[in-house]
Amino acid sequence: MPKYIPQRAPMGWNSYDYYDTNVTEAEVLANAEFMAKHLKPFGWEYVVVDIQWYAYDTASMRDRFQYIPFGINEMDEFGRLLPCPDKFPSSVSGKGFQPLADKIHALGLKFGIHVMRGIPRLAAHHHMPICGTDETADMVADPASVSEWNPDMYGVRNTPAGQAYYDSVLRLYAQWGVDFIKVDDICVTGFHPHRNYGRRHEVEMLSSAIEKCGRDIVLSLSPGPAAVEESWHYSRYANMWRITDDFWDNWDTLLHMFDRCEKWQDHVSRGSYPDCDMLPLGKVGKHFDQERDTLFTKEEQKTMMTLWCIFGSPLMLGAEMTKLDAWTLSLLQNEELLRLENGSFISRQVLRDAEKCVWASVDPKTGEIYVALFNFKDRAQQISLPYAHCAAMFPAGHFPEKMPPMREIWSGQAYKTNTDTVCGSVPPHGALLLHSAKF
Amino acid sequence: MPKYIPQRAPMGWNSYDYYDTNVTEAEVLANAEFMAKHLKPFGWEYVVVDIQWYAYDTASMRDRFQYIPFGINEMDEFGRLLPCPDKFPSSVSGKGFQPLADKIHALGLKFGIHVMRGIPRLAAHHHMPICGTDETADMVADPASVSEWNPDMYGVRNTPAGQAYYDSVLRLYAQWGVDFIKVDDICVTGFHPHRNYGRRHEVEMLSSAIEKCGRDIVLSLSPGPAAVEESWHYSRYANMWRITDDFWDNWDTLLHMFDRCEKWQDHVSRGSYPDCDMLPLGKVGKHFDQERDTLFTKEEQKTMMTLWCIFGSPLMLGAEMTKLDAWTLSLLQNEELLRLENGSFISRQVLRDAEKCVWASVDPKTGEIYVALFNFKDRAQQISLPYAHCAAMFPAGHFPEKMPPMREIWSGQAYKTNTDTVCGSVPPHGALLLHSAKF
Amino acid sequence: MPKYIPQRAPMGWNSYDYYDTNVTEAEVLANAEFMAKHLKPFGWEYVVVDIQWYAYDTASMRDRFQYIPFGINEMDEFGRLLPCPDKFPSSVSGKGFQPLADKIHALGLKFGIHVMRGIPRLAAHHHMPICGTDETADMVADPASVSEWNPDMYGVRNTPAGQAYYDSVLRLYAQWGVDFIKVDDICVTGFHPHRNYGRRHEVEMLSSAIEKCGRDIVLSLSPGPAAVEESWHYSRYANMWRITDDFWDNWDTLLHMFDRCEKWQDHVSRGSYPDCDMLPLGKVGKHFDQERDTLFTKEEQKTMMTLWCIFGSPLMLGAEMTKLDAWTLSLLQNEELLRLENGSFISRQVLRDAEKCVWASVDPKTGEIYVALFNFKDRAQQISLPYAHCAAMFPAGHFPEKMPPMREIWSGQAYKTNTDTVCGSVPPHGALLLHSAKF
Amino acid sequence: MPKYIPQRAPMGWNSYDYYDTNVTEAEVLANAEFMAKHLKPFGWEYVVVDIQWYAYDTASMRDRFQYIPFGINEMDEFGRLLPCPDKFPSSVSGKGFQPLADKIHALGLKFGIHVMRGIPRLAAHHHMPICGTDETADMVADPASVSEWNPDMYGVRNTPAGQAYYDSVLRLYAQWGVDFIKVDDICVTGFHPHRNYGRRHEVEMLSSAIEKCGRDIVLSLSPGPAAVEESWHYSRYANMWRITDDFWDNWDTLLHMFDRCEKWQDHVSRGSYPDCDMLPLGKVGKHFDQERDTLFTKEEQKTMMTLWCIFGSPLMLGAEMTKLDAWTLSLLQNEELLRLENGSFISRQVLRDAEKCVWASVDPKTGEIYVALFNFKDRAQQISLPYAHCAAMFPAGHFPEKMPPMREIWSGQAYKTNTDTVCGSVPPHGALLLHSAKF
Repeated sequence: MPKYIPQRAPMGWNSYDYYDTNVTEAEVLANAEFMAKHLKPFGWEYVVVDIQWYAYDTASMRDRFQYIPFGINEMDEFGRLLPCPDKFPSSVSGKGFQPLADKIHALGLKFGIHVMRGIPRLAAHHHMPICGTDETADMVADPASVSEWNPDMYGVRNTPAGQAYYDSVLRLYAQWGVDFIKVDDICVTGFHPHRNYGRRHEVEMLSSAIEKCGRDIVLSLSPGPAAVEESWHYSRYANMWRITDDFWDNWDTLLHMFDRCEKWQDHVSRGSYPDCDMLPLGKVGKHFDQERDTLFTKEEQKTMMTLWCIFGSPLMLGAEMTKLDAWTLSLLQNEELLRLENGSFISRQVLRDAEKCVWASVDPKTGEIYVALFNFKDRAQQISLPYAHCAAMFPAGHFPEKMPPMREIWSGQAYKTNTDTVCGSVPPHGALLLHSAKF
Repeated sequence: MPKYIPQRAPMGWNSYDYYDTNVTEAEVLANAEFMAKHLKPFGWEYVVVDIQWYAYDTASMRDRFQYIPFGINEMDEFGRLLPCPDKFPSSVSGKGFQPLADKIHALGLKFGIHVMRGIPRLAAHHHMPICGTDETADMVADPASVSEWNPDMYGVRNTPAGQAYYDSVLRLYAQWGVDFIKVDDICVTGFHPHRNYGRRHEVEMLSSAIEKCGRDIVLSLSPGPAAVEESWHYSRYANMWRITDDFWDNWDTLLHMFDRCEKWQDHVSRGSYPDCDMLPLGKVGKHFDQERDTLFTKEEQKTMMTLWCIFGSPLMLGAEMTKLDAWTLSLLQNEELLRLENGSFISRQVLRDAEKCVWASVDPKTGEIYVALFNFKDRAQQISLPYAHCAAMFPAGHFPEKMPPMREIWSGQAYKTNTDTVCGSVPPHGALLLHSAKF
Repeated sequence: MPKYIPQRAPMGWNSYDYYDTNVTEAEVLANAEFMAKHLKPFGWEYVVVDIQWYAYDTASMRDRFQYIPFGINEMDEFGRLLPCPDKFPSSVSGKGFQPLADKIHALGLKFGIHVMRGIPRLAAHHHMPICGTDETADMVADPASVSEWNPDMYGVRNTPAGQAYYDSVLRLYAQWGVDFIKVDDICVTGFHPHRNYGRRHEVEMLSSAIEKCGRDIVLSLSPGPAAVEESWHYSRYANMWRITDDFWDNWDTLLHMFDRCEKWQDHVSRGSYPDCDMLPLGKVGKHFDQERDTLFTKEEQKTMMTLWCIFGSPLMLGAEMTKLDAWTLSLLQNEELLRLENGSFISRQVLRDAEKCVWASVDPKTGEIYVALFNFKDRAQQISLPYAHCAAMFPAGHFPEKMPPMREIWSGQAYKTNTDTVCGSVPPHGALLLHSAKF
Repeated sequence: MPKYIPQRAPMGWNSYDYYDTNVTEAEVLANAEFMAKHLKPFGWEYVVVDIQWYAYDTASMRDRFQYIPFGINEMDEFGRLLPCPDKFPSSVSGKGFQPLADKIHALGLKFGIHVMRGIPRLAAHHHMPICGTDETADMVADPASVSEWNPDMYGVRNTPAGQAYYDSVLRLYAQWGVDFIKVDDICVTGFHPHRNYGRRHEVEMLSSAIEKCGRDIVLSLSPGPAAVEESWHYSRYANMWRITDDFWDNWDTLLHMFDRCEKWQDHVSRGSYPDCDMLPLGKVGKHFDQERDTLFTKEEQKTMMTLWCIFGSPLMLGAEMTKLDAWTLSLLQNEELLRLENGSFISRQVLRDAEKCVWASVDPKTGEIYVALFNFKDRAQQISLPYAHCAAMFPAGHFPEKMPPMREIWSGQAYKTNTDTVCGSVPPHGALLLHSAKF
């Protein structure tokens, strides 16, 4: 009866950062094959088709609109969106995403899709029937509930017929073999700044529809920043929720993530993974403007990976995987780093000021620990603090009282532990990640 | 080239308070005939058909919706709304409101209509052409700009084609003989609390369309409360703008109007009339629930009339006029009161606290003055203040230095003036209005 | 090194609701004796002297000021406040609160005091020395950090000398035998609405000072509503923090508490007790105006006690205990209710709408459960929900899958359990509290 | 009885931008002598001593505090601040500012001082008497009303004794010969973001005290940004009020001023001068850090002077005058520019977007006009608009219908007028100012 509990933080790939609204079936498959071959052993498993898979001509007005207003979308007779056959040829004849999902499952991976909250606007204006009911979409759609940025949908009213609509959509997804939905315009809705989480009833309806559909489907909510005041609600009904605005490869935005992680640190637990958003690594941006390399320095990339992992965020890669270079690939294959994503660790910010930050993490069952030192300055600095300050952040008995032998994972070097002090020299915008060495 | 300047504050009748969305041609005419006979000599002249004149079946779902979502509206091939023939039978065969406007003009009155900001949603979804251009509505409509409360329209983009749409609409209105438009969802837009006046470009577009249409049309903006920070913009482009939320017959709301009038007192001038909203007098409410008498006491009604007039608000009667009783009618035929609406007076709040308020008004060309004393308490009180405090609110030379002989207009009694003090005993929730007697 | 962890939610008595600023030593002792005799066996143990114990003539200007501006306070040479001997005669000759604390300890109880955040204003203006340093108060006091409502103090700067001041104060309290401090003007500071928790460094300084003072002292923060975004910080450094404005005996305020408890439900744990504020039961209000009975009905009192207990709030009685009637006393001696305060239960809101609310609670180690049904309506109603909805709020395995035998604690009657539905007929504004019967 | 009406916008010099808290009598006099000789003929007349003239040792802790907390101030027995004799030697023996004011008057200039809203904190803590009453300062001072940034004062309560305090202060100023007071921490008070103008009763009290003191004293309010919603109140009681935060020589801040001027454009009239703050020209900053030249380019300086003048702001020079270079001096001696400050012009923003802005101004009695073109871009641009758009901003009859012959004042060149278009090529960040040539 409770929500589905993914045992570890979801890790995967998402088409958006590289393909914008235009990814095709062949491109998805090429990335899935790469993942199966190079990343699956390290925990990466979700392949997610992002926004506008149902829309025609998505790139045709890119200079004026990311989302064509009042454009043409593929839809069935019950107002449910279907893949656009121009982009997903295998979807014709009512097969939807099932053929693609089958191929991805055959690779040992899981299949996810993006979906806008709501019911298509045209379904409402055309009074289309709701599957399995005798109501029509005009009674289910809320004409005042639109997205600030996407023109496709109306929000769904909190009524039995509204629930029936979401149930019908999730039945279709389960039939296709969908394992993950990233629902957008729902985690916060910009239209209502005084009640950012004003559509939380749609989260409950989606959660209920997932439960009824008979398939384990991860429920991921976007965009952020999620409202901390509603943390209990996200935790009860969803698996991931975005704690930030769209994240891109910009140092100021990365710096701001430390503020968001501070606020959400007590809300990470098995099955509930506050989400720092996709990783803009490697090659990105092709369909936004042109293909480019991430703007992050190597140290900044290590800082990002360290923060996402020690905080416990899901990891969704934004890069075109087939073009990953060896160094970037090594970030994604670091077992000692990714171990933090296994759902067993509890993590706490130990200190943060304008120049630095320290986090500590522990598996309370085993006493295995990590300590991360982050340098916000534009030049290297020595960061040090009493080891006891780390232990003090956790309930008594969770964190080892004495510092165990440790090693720094990015350098692979052993860490000297004959004092009560954690310290290290950290490069500009960089991070050290210490790990208790016996594991 | 500047906006049309109505020389005095517009006075008239509006169908909303009594008829909600359902007024018919016959009912409009019956009220117009009453106005022509009984009120026209006192300055009342506008007859305004309020919201949903283009919609079918407007009362059919009143228990669930005031405005039927995704309902059927009458529209021409250019996405311009037309009167619904069920309610306005003379409008058939493309004649629109012209026959009705003709009859109202024949009574010596002026004709006004309500209109929602924007372009009909279906025009956008159906890619209908914009009259006189080769563009279509989907490029003009902004899919993210909807009303919080009415489901009919999308906002218009600030582009040449957008302007062409508004131009085409105003040409049609001018051809019908419309003298007044009350544009709704534009003065403030609840969807954007951080930029309440976020659609001010649509006000500019409407103003420009009026200028080009070749007819003097009053531009009235709703709903309120208008943003005082944008006062200069309202003043430049519109004739009236609502300074409050919807006003109904409730003492607390009336009390709150004193706060709004304080803030707007320096923004009233010939052609620019901040608007305190309609007067819920006599019989109201029939199509909301059932016909009822105003909930205001007689003293509260005098307070309302006194404040609206001394502030200089437009006066739009909400009552069903054919059912007015003699006492209410006398309020509307008080020449000495309504003289304040002639566009020549400058008015200032002299003092206000939790228990009372005093306003003063002067025609600077003649020295004619009014002083109003308002009692907010639930029992009678004596209100008094130095006459000089009234004069001090005005530029030197505007207000007579010595108190002239005065009379109280509600009682008609002369006011004793052998002191330097203005004072009077004011009934609970009531008002006295003193007027320099020689006029 | 971590903060002191009180194993169960603090329960006690506070002088404010009855005595305002004026409680005396004799009155405190009379209440302590009553508690020792009648309430101690049920878990009540803290006796807390509330605000202004250091001030002279506190009641002398009650018609104008609750806190006399720039009044006379008892202080030592290091700017540390001392009890006013007029009210606490045993405190003379530098003994401070030690004699009173000794007597309360002798009764088997614990002793608490209220304290305003900061350093006395006069200490700053007179450049008084900080004990154990060579700095003076003018360098430690922040002239821009004042309370909105109390005139006595300046906030303390985040500097070593500032820490030294707080250390010196806590050393004094530890020497007196203080077990509990209620620090005021710190949980939120009204002066800074955009950064309500702007003085969180003073919480850290107080926490550090407690740690150093060598005594287990509960740290309680006021006033509320605490900022949910900062929940992690309150949890790390304090034991209790007010989640509401001052709570009094008014139904609307009680109703609002359900909203606050919803938001804070995931933040209750052993040692961290979000605080619903004092219980205005029995006789209250004497020194505010005049002694009066609580305005709550008996059903509302049961609702309050049920909510505070199932949520896990501390319980601080506001009544004059020596005047408690038998019925009120029975509320405070209900073992089956107060068992919820033992620090072992995890509680969740199961549902809430405008008419009703349901909470469930479980001790995950034993499977012992409670379910509370609250009726917000002005007349009785039947409340029912599937038992499975309660279980679904908890991690798998925590809450028993099948409903155990239960009894309703206010009536003492067994509850029929042959269905999958929890239901009951709940009086107006009342509550039922079901408890698994075997315990 | 109404407030004093300065017939033209006040122009003068203020010590702050160069001297911070440390200006001395000799420095003030040197600047006054320069003004008398070089600037007085162009309308510059006020010499204003800015903040902390009453404080000792003001520069002694400049690395830590701009205003020394709990420092030593010169004060009389009635809690009225007096000049610090260290900085103003002629003030000894109770003569206050009278000797300095006399010298400035002798130069044909006027004398102004800065003053913090309120009563000194120590006066309250020491219960000092209020001159002419039997009340003491502790009853007049409001302990919760402090400045966010200056530690010296408490706000004054709205009581007869509070008024008596302000009356006593203004009597002293009148006796000294003060012509101008810049009252600080009053126009907005940062402590109360939800009621920024929360101390408006103190403005009324100051206005009343000025009226009673028998001397024409300009009332200037700081800091900004003033609340546009309260424009009527500033207009009624003050002569100048800051519409911005502290203004310094930074392009972004200058750009932002166009936004502020847009909002305040309808609130400029004879006697009421919304204030864009001091002009950071020439040499500034000496006592903040070190003497430096303004960071504005010459074009930016012309933009600033053009905007301040066409908007109608007061002009208060921040430069050390004795060090003015010839070019800067020429800005301050431009008669054709400064003519806009004579209190006869009405000005309106004609258009503004992200790249440019146009203002127009007219003396409605004579038809004399100015048009300013501003270029926000980093490179030169051609700006053009129909002349009729300027005229449309004004009431009919105010602005000439046909473009008169014009000349551009910064270049002195005649402007070609054989079209209906106003246009010009404007340098980066620069301005053109066209003036009807016959004047």
